[in-house]
Amino acid sequence: MADVLRVGLAGLGTVGGGVIRVLAANRDLIARRAGRSIEIVAVSARDRNRDRGLDLSGFAWIDDTTALASHPDVDVVVELIGGSDGPALTLARETLAAGKGLVTANKAMIAHHGLELARAAETARAPLAFEAAVAGGIPVIKGLRDGAAANVIERVYGILNGTCNFILSAMEASGRDFGDVLAEAQALGYAEADPAFDIDGIDAAHKLSILASVAFGTQPAFAGVAVQGIREVIAADIAEAAALGYRVRLVGVAEVGAGGLFQRIHPHLVPTGHPLAHVTGALNAVVAHGNFVGPLFFQGAGAGEGPTASAVVADLIDIARGEFGPAYAMPADALDQAPPQDSADRRCRAYLRFTVMDRVGVLAEIATAMRDAGVSIESLIQRGTTASGGAMVAIVTHEGPERAVAAALERLRGSQSVVGQPMWMHILS
Amino acid sequence: MADVLRVGLAGLGTVGGGVIRVLAANRDLIARRAGRSIEIVAVSARDRNRDRGLDLSGFAWIDDTTALASHPDVDVVVELIGGSDGPALTLARETLAAGKGLVTANKAMIAHHGLELARAAETARAPLAFEAAVAGGIPVIKGLRDGAAANVIERVYGILNGTCNFILSAMEASGRDFGDVLAEAQALGYAEADPAFDIDGIDAAHKLSILASVAFGTQPAFAGVAVQGIREVIAADIAEAAALGYRVRLVGVAEVGAGGLFQRIHPHLVPTGHPLAHVTGALNAVVAHGNFVGPLFFQGAGAGEGPTASAVVADLIDIARGEFGPAYAMPADALDQAPPQDSADRRCRAYLRFTVMDRVGVLAEIATAMRDAGVSIESLIQRGTTASGGAMVAIVTHEGPERAVAAALERLRGSQSVVGQPMWMHILS
Repeated sequence: MADVLRVGLAGLGTVGGGVIRVLAANRDLIARRAGRSIEIVAVSARDRNRDRGLDLSGFAWIDDTTALASHPDVDVVVELIGGSDGPALTLARETLAAGKGLVTANKAMIAHHGLELARAAETARAPLAFEAAVAGGIPVIKGLRDGAAANVIERVYGILNGTCNFILSAMEASGRDFGDVLAEAQALGYAEADPAFDIDGIDAAHKLSILASVAFGTQPAFAGVAVQGIREVIAADIAEAAALGYRVRLVGVAEVGAGGLFQRIHPHLVPTGHPLAHVTGALNAVVAHGNFVGPLFFQGAGAGEGPTASAVVADLIDIARGEFGPAYAMPADALDQAPPQDSADRRCRAYLRFTVMDRVGVLAEIATAMRDAGVSIESLIQRGTTASGGAMVAIVTHEGPERAVAAALERLRGSQSVVGQPMWMHILS
Repeated sequence: MADVLRVGLAGLGTVGGGVIRVLAANRDLIARRAGRSIEIVAVSARDRNRDRGLDLSGFAWIDDTTALASHPDVDVVVELIGGSDGPALTLARETLAAGKGLVTANKAMIAHHGLELARAAETARAPLAFEAAVAGGIPVIKGLRDGAAANVIERVYGILNGTCNFILSAMEASGRDFGDVLAEAQALGYAEADPAFDIDGIDAAHKLSILASVAFGTQPAFAGVAVQGIREVIAADIAEAAALGYRVRLVGVAEVGAGGLFQRIHPHLVPTGHPLAHVTGALNAVVAHGNFVGPLFFQGAGAGEGPTASAVVADLIDIARGEFGPAYAMPADALDQAPPQDSADRRCRAYLRFTVMDRVGVLAEIATAMRDAGVSIESLIQRGTTASGGAMVAIVTHEGPERAVAAALERLRGSQSVVGQPMWMHILS
């Protein structure tokens, strides 16, 4: 254990730079905590000549990233290349095949190929760790894998995408519409030039599927996540939600039980008394319900150089200590294969918002569709004309079957009165 | 690793019963997660014949609790006897001396003797774990020891006593005074018949000193915790705080830096926008600031059968997995010995409340004492007469040296106008 843990670092973007900085700045403390030094010995990235503001002179430069897997001086590879397949996956496979440890922040790769990689790690008796893949700096994988390990967990949910939370918080604070705030978030670096992965919920879905597997002891099932992002949320939705005592958040919910495995990313109305309602800006937060511990709540920075690098280095410290085991908290073969639950079989309270033509009979048409589908209305508000000459109808339903809500919306499809797509948000309970 | 991990359980109170129930109810899942079965083989408690509603027939009964340490069928002892010394400490010492693992929920023992026990565990290469000693079911020891391990942490603080938080929340919700609410809390089982350990802050101080050591890499220093509880908080303090945008919470704060190690349990005014302001009832919560991850926030049930047993069993799972190491996140000899920081050297914003005689010159006397001590007043409110014929003066100071506030109170000691002790609360920043 006195030997140095030698790290090969693949990818020198924001997080890669962060890992170099954490290991340098906190070198002595990390060695005391890990029981030995953790040293980067080799690095690899696409462009050797790009100025990253990093001193790389102490590290061997490896042109062929995959060669890190077989580099004789490397004990553990840190994969920060990104992308579910391609060079990242090749490096991951070869690293584990070579019997070396793999630490990654790559949520897409783990969501798609985590089970395969976990099996490869078990075969090689090598560590595989991906704390940084979920909720950035928050140690929620360790919190579920280790801290809550005594519990049957049947529900885990949270705010898993900082970009979306930044945008929704800013819309809430300023009353502005989605497009405006997205442009601002892009200017500030909180959203990518191509923001689709974040705002359409894919990134959150990757993370939710990983969390669900660790929490429930079920095989990861990314394909089973129902996903809707926040593009369709308008300022008026947030204002109506506020008037009703809610805040709008993109929430990922996973549940497992007799009905199977349910996983969904969707805009939710969160009651202002709920801890998730107080998660603002780019923060992330996760709630897990254990059958003995009750709800556990974890909150922190969900992205960014320092927080994500903190999670990567925490995994390296576990490995340096020899304190690691199966990545999903149990061997891959011990994970249950839970069938996906059909959302139509669930019960919910829904917020429905229609943009409508301001003409006679619109309300009756909507109310009739609700009645005929068996949706019970708790409250309904119609607000006056908008700039485009239309009006807005916002409905909160009583709890009832989701299939009824879907049927009501189906009845209204093709209506001459409803403009564009209706907005359906779930009310978090 | 396929062998059963055999547990000897000392103490069959609330938490002991919980451990038996968790291991029974979640048996299969725990075995999948731990890689092997965890079985209680022997139990010991004071009175064999007491009806605890537990089926103990599957366990050997050990009359002499200390004999668990040398019992040939026991791999790990779970100590749930309580008390900083006496039988608990004897059992802990003998267990580790015998080379067996020790898991404990005993915050008093760890606060007083943790370093000695950690050294003994290292000598024996045996595991020592005390997740359940701090913040009940919240895995905050693991969160700091493992999750935040890459970070220099210079500040950790939180709500560490559920009884106090229950009382303060109930005072806030009902406007009632401390004595009333304490009686209710006792009737509901949220406070002990002798509530001194909780309401005078000792229990929170035990936990804070343990947290600080794990977070900072400093030797545990319980004797260095400045402690004030909540007995002196009156309903009017909570009302004034609310009017100013604060809630009253008993907060433990630990900081380390060039000035040394500072540890204090004290009633605080917490801004309503701060996550700790939303921690209500018997919940606990901890915030740790890492130099790369930023603030991490953990919240959950701080006490009770299920949550505390969840933490005990999580430690057993770590041990069953072989994923354990030095209890304070580094070897005992690697811990720094930080000198205690004198609170007088700190800067603060203070809330000061005086109950005063309703007569001419009182305000001038208080204001003069503040001025002469160099305390700058941000706001001052005097409220009319109370039932006892007095009045109340509440002051919020600008930020300034704590020694100035102490000097001002010293100047007012023996005043004929001030009734009883002034109340000093810190304003959390």
